[in-house]
Amino acid sequence: MAEPLRIALAGLGTVGAGVVRLLHTNAALVGARAGRDIRIVAVSARDRSRDRGVDLSAFDWCDDMTAMAARPDVDAVVELVGGADGPALTLARAATREGKALVTANKAMIAHHGLALAQAAEEAGVPLKFEAAVAGGIPVIKGLREGAAANHIGRVQGILNGTCNFILSAMEQSGRDFADVLAEAQALGFAEADPSFDIDGIDAGHKLAILAAIAFGARLDFAHVSCGGIAQVRAADIARARDLGFVIRLVGEADIDVGAQRLLQRVRPCLVPRAHPLAHVDGATNAVVAEGNFSGRLLFQGAGAGDGPTASAVVADLIDIARGESHPAFSVPVGRLAAMQPAEPGDRLGRSYIRFTVADRPGVLAEITAAMRDAEVSIESLIQQGQPNAEGDVLVAMVTHEGPEQCVTRALELLSGAASLTAPPLVLPLLEA
Amino acid sequence: MAEPLRIALAGLGTVGAGVVRLLHTNAALVGARAGRDIRIVAVSARDRSRDRGVDLSAFDWCDDMTAMAARPDVDAVVELVGGADGPALTLARAATREGKALVTANKAMIAHHGLALAQAAEEAGVPLKFEAAVAGGIPVIKGLREGAAANHIGRVQGILNGTCNFILSAMEQSGRDFADVLAEAQALGFAEADPSFDIDGIDAGHKLAILAAIAFGARLDFAHVSCGGIAQVRAADIARARDLGFVIRLVGEADIDVGAQRLLQRVRPCLVPRAHPLAHVDGATNAVVAEGNFSGRLLFQGAGAGDGPTASAVVADLIDIARGESHPAFSVPVGRLAAMQPAEPGDRLGRSYIRFTVADRPGVLAEITAAMRDAEVSIESLIQQGQPNAEGDVLVAMVTHEGPEQCVTRALELLSGAASLTAPPLVLPLLEA
Repeated sequence: MAEPLRIALAGLGTVGAGVVRLLHTNAALVGARAGRDIRIVAVSARDRSRDRGVDLSAFDWCDDMTAMAARPDVDAVVELVGGADGPALTLARAATREGKALVTANKAMIAHHGLALAQAAEEAGVPLKFEAAVAGGIPVIKGLREGAAANHIGRVQGILNGTCNFILSAMEQSGRDFADVLAEAQALGFAEADPSFDIDGIDAGHKLAILAAIAFGARLDFAHVSCGGIAQVRAADIARARDLGFVIRLVGEADIDVGAQRLLQRVRPCLVPRAHPLAHVDGATNAVVAEGNFSGRLLFQGAGAGDGPTASAVVADLIDIARGESHPAFSVPVGRLAAMQPAEPGDRLGRSYIRFTVADRPGVLAEITAAMRDAEVSIESLIQQGQPNAEGDVLVAMVTHEGPEQCVTRALELLSGAASLTAPPLVLPLLEA
Repeated sequence: MAEPLRIALAGLGTVGAGVVRLLHTNAALVGARAGRDIRIVAVSARDRSRDRGVDLSAFDWCDDMTAMAARPDVDAVVELVGGADGPALTLARAATREGKALVTANKAMIAHHGLALAQAAEEAGVPLKFEAAVAGGIPVIKGLREGAAANHIGRVQGILNGTCNFILSAMEQSGRDFADVLAEAQALGFAEADPSFDIDGIDAGHKLAILAAIAFGARLDFAHVSCGGIAQVRAADIARARDLGFVIRLVGEADIDVGAQRLLQRVRPCLVPRAHPLAHVDGATNAVVAEGNFSGRLLFQGAGAGDGPTASAVVADLIDIARGESHPAFSVPVGRLAAMQPAEPGDRLGRSYIRFTVADRPGVLAEITAAMRDAEVSIESLIQQGQPNAEGDVLVAMVTHEGPEQCVTRALELLSGAASLTAPPLVLPLLEA
């Protein structure tokens, strides 16, 4: 058997400890699959004294994590520190500069600096891999970059944030409202104390930008991802969606106008029809749908986070590196990625769910429907809640016929400032089955 | 750019024509992903005169398909002829002998001869790849061999035959019976004129044996796959299953007793609970679920057949070959695959759906339930159809509590030959969610 692949591991949180555990527990299997042993030689983290439930005594402890990249006894650096910049980025740059392979689970860093890191890795002739950065244990980066490699992919859609999906699923099952379920998720450890990265759609946006670059062979462009979150979704919206045959999920969606080479990237809660594969993704599960021009629709689904699944993805990358696999990080070399303009969504055709929170008095419905008419939004169905809620508000929800998105935007502009609206309206697109 | 990868293509049915079309339509993308062009130089099929809707004029036509493997201007052979033996096997052996890479979509050949072919390919130092042989366009072989490579996989389950899934879905939606729906599927081209390979579970068994070898790192063992089919499933069974919260699907399932190194491989219709990912796989779609000890449950889903999806998988293999990817065909070299004994299913614990077709007269239920008692099968629920059917038969269906499978077998033995049973009973296992 060949020489072992020697690893420096930076970051010993739950995922780092998971990698240590996996490489110990599955050592023989990993060696057989990789064709050689994968061996941790050095580790680094902020706090040396913390008990992580794994035995680190066989590894060199390094206080200076960046210096690990320069060690001659290290072939590959695994970055599990997190954060778009700071120590993670410093380490990533050092690894490439020192000619070491780099594996990371850091979606924020890849979303912001992935192109520059990939370029540097190509110039140094070393692999850069980040399967764990998107959808945890699901091998979706490999699936798109290699499994679907023969296809022009026109669209990717994904449930990319387990926290949001956990919350929406729990709201659906319990009928409880967002704040309530979020508090419970925080208590259970399914949501961070500061959950804004998750619930505002930023984390999903990071992952979507990475997927889009790989799927479309486009230059990664997180700056033009439109990120929306789930905090405005109410239990009443979920109940209405269910009555209409839909579930509400936070969906990251990217597509390209093939002719125009324009890229649209959006994260937002959507009404997903039950016939769509994403409608059956519950709890903290992640899933990605990609539509290839020959493969048709592919679905990849599994655990989107957690120490075990994330470690599974990190070690899969290490096995590829140990085998000498050398795919470009984003499917094709950075210089061959297409520079796409952001697409204007306004003339896209679609159906929308629109929910208004209104004062319970006469004339409100006439005002809303007049604005719809004036903006040329055609209403397919309209549901008015019978009873006002505790604040005396009534919810009015409608589903539009298919039409340009900009008409809905226009209707809401016409209604902006209307005294009868007691809260900003919520617009959720309906996905096609 | 490097020299092109030069292909000889044998077999020009729908899949072969699909490969020609894909390599033409997506030529630039395929070249970018592969790092070099992939170019067909020679083709062969039985009938030269047939119009296949693709332009073959740029390729050398070869009447002797085996001779293509010896051409010095060919780097890789694509075998799309089909059949476990005969010309396909002769060509496959010739390709390896001549030091050529081999790509095939031929599940029967791989199920029967995959180990010998992989051994020969290893000895010759050439790739053998067959992504298209299992689940059409879904990159599940890559997903298990590489994406989940870091995991001990304990179980794989799959909907592996699109024809059966199409028929069961159509029965479910229309309430019609098997023979009726099969005839329609044949008329629509979704089922072969001789459908036995599909509906008897043989085709799914081929695919299951291949998946099991890759997932468990075990020697491929099609001889010990127990293959059952769907011809005995009635519309009434589907209706009963639905009332109980299940759908009926033909599921291929393989698992290992890790300690004992015993392998169980079975294809049979199962009751799938709605919370299981396979419950939402409708029509000709295929799906595979694999459970890794770190990844957790992974689901891969997509089109299981058709010219486009199958061509997508064939060309993905060619791109890997063009890039110099060199994974062993079954995850690890043939010599390192575990030789597992077939497991005895009798002491497995599970719940079963059992449906009896009985004469409509007193005492029948007492006879059945006495046999259950004597065999120590505990009945969870029992449903007797109110009205006899056209033949004067009544259906009696029950669901058992969890218990050893051999108890159900024993109960049916006790009832065998009973005058009140007018047809052999049907036993369908209930999958766990």
